[in-house]
Amino acid sequence: MKTPSTLKSLIEALRVLPGVGPKSAQRMAYHLLQRDQSGAAELARALADALTHLKHCARCNTFTEQEICELCADASRDDAQLCVVEMPGDLLRMEQTQAYHGRYFVLMGRLSPLDGIGPGDVHFDRLLARAADGLVKEVILSTNFTVEGEATAHYLAELLRAQGMQVSRIARGLPVGGELEHVDSGTLAQAFIERRHV
Amino acid sequence: MKTPSTLKSLIEALRVLPGVGPKSAQRMAYHLLQRDQSGAAELARALADALTHLKHCARCNTFTEQEICELCADASRDDAQLCVVEMPGDLLRMEQTQAYHGRYFVLMGRLSPLDGIGPGDVHFDRLLARAADGLVKEVILSTNFTVEGEATAHYLAELLRAQGMQVSRIARGLPVGGELEHVDSGTLAQAFIERRHV
Repeated sequence: MKTPSTLKSLIEALRVLPGVGPKSAQRMAYHLLQRDQSGAAELARALADALTHLKHCARCNTFTEQEICELCADASRDDAQLCVVEMPGDLLRMEQTQAYHGRYFVLMGRLSPLDGIGPGDVHFDRLLARAADGLVKEVILSTNFTVEGEATAHYLAELLRAQGMQVSRIARGLPVGGELEHVDSGTLAQAFIERRHV
Repeated sequence: MKTPSTLKSLIEALRVLPGVGPKSAQRMAYHLLQRDQSGAAELARALADALTHLKHCARCNTFTEQEICELCADASRDDAQLCVVEMPGDLLRMEQTQAYHGRYFVLMGRLSPLDGIGPGDVHFDRLLARAADGLVKEVILSTNFTVEGEATAHYLAELLRAQGMQVSRIARGLPVGGELEHVDSGTLAQAFIERRHV
């Protein structure tokens, strides 16, 4: 008695999801096939759509369906400040504080030598080019206060200072080991206001 | 600043997976788009394939790509015994014990009134029709020893006895609250051998 090959392929394919092992993948496959075929069809469609339509903003590197994302195209933002975050969710979180009106750059990752993610994988070259547009006066490093986020900020600060940029880091008002996503707006706003030069 | 609609659709679509909330769905979407686009494409393809090709075996109700699954088509199996399990994984688990050589019926679920899953949703009518083929002498209820699995076994025993069938239940050698998938072969084989009439 063998598992049908299409079912086996589906279970295997579900394991690309982070945190999903063989048991969860099997449970997910049964759930989709048995209880939510329309949800499964919608998921297949959404995956294909996202792969087709989403690209990186040519200026800030976040996910967008246009060449330049909405925020980068907004003429009312302050070109003199460039806030560097790890992921698009961090950008949204920062926007919710309403404490910042400059531009962003989304790294789409962080240095993580243990996972084999080095400077080349995080496209620091694109950030350096972006920061050197002649308008940016200050780069505000807003990576997480995790070990990886701190290492990333430290590494970026050196690169940017070598280019003669003014570099700051949001204040360590966040709990050590904390992530932007999980902190309340007040704390994050305070950390932003108390950013220190590095 | 809004999340692009294709990204929002993907995050929403991932939530059809059991146990995946808004945060996990976001993390999964970023991971797929940023680190594993080929895995994402493969997942989309596997989902579409499975939805197209997998159906239920006309005899035992498990997932198969044929009309009749491999095991139901195998003439060497004993037609006099019919083992009823909840899910295809339970069938595979039972096969691994090599203690059983009869037929199976896969319920593809269990009674679960709290989740709105009643007798009509688990296709008990198909099991009753299958058991009444004139060859089956004994129906062995091998649902899990969870509250839902026990309720299902109890309910099925009444229905099947009313049809004049001989009904047994695998022995409660499994730990209470335990599931077939997680028990070792020896214990499961013992529970099978010590099945009692109900």
